[in-house]
Amino acid sequence: MTRFDKHVFVCTNQRGSGHPRGCCNDRGSSAIRFAFVDGLKKRGLKGVVRANKTGCLDACELGPAVVIYPQGIWYLHVTTDDVEEIIETSVIGDGVVNRLAAGAAEWDELQKIRAAERTDKK
Amino acid sequence: MTRFDKHVFVCTNQRGSGHPRGCCNDRGSSAIRFAFVDGLKKRGLKGVVRANKTGCLDACELGPAVVIYPQGIWYLHVTTDDVEEIIETSVIGDGVVNRLAAGAAEWDELQKIRAAERTDKK
Repeated sequence: MTRFDKHVFVCTNQRGSGHPRGCCNDRGSSAIRFAFVDGLKKRGLKGVVRANKTGCLDACELGPAVVIYPQGIWYLHVTTDDVEEIIETSVIGDGVVNRLAAGAAEWDELQKIRAAERTDKK
Repeated sequence: MTRFDKHVFVCTNQRGSGHPRGCCNDRGSSAIRFAFVDGLKKRGLKGVVRANKTGCLDACELGPAVVIYPQGIWYLHVTTDDVEEIIETSVIGDGVVNRLAAGAAEWDELQKIRAAERTDKK
């Protein structure tokens, strides 16, 4: 039996400086998580929806990354300015903020970036 | 578009010693996450299923807590010995390990524990 109507996960992984992938935390994801927590709290959704930090969601180069379950919507390149729209659309509603949502093109892009990283290493 | 077939989240929150709720990390959840990572890797599921650590999932007193999406199955009092069964049942399969899964009774129990904690504080 599930516990939360929606569950927001924000990658707050922190890598050492100079890592080729970078990391979501260096791109501001801790502030993004706090924006979710605040936005949920002000809507009286504490205990109904939860926003958690996570370890690396493996979308580093396209981060900050956020995933919302149970829908499994992935948002990439998120900023604090996007959080209210995401809450209204995908937490209160069941829609998708298309300009931020990952689709096949974004996952293909990530594969290409990773392939290039492997080539650079050789 | 979602990225992983299943996504396992393991609470690895660490509180200071003596906190009345305790915390999942003190109850061994970091080892549980590594057991998931290892179990997925040995099945060739890297990139298909991910096991992430999270901040506090707010089930502290009944932890270690694990939640698996998209199903939204919550497992409580998890040990490393349970991980293989959970992977086979809820990650490879779509079933539930009933002896560990949270239902209404567990969430009611948590509410009662929290109510008692509030009384103790007064």
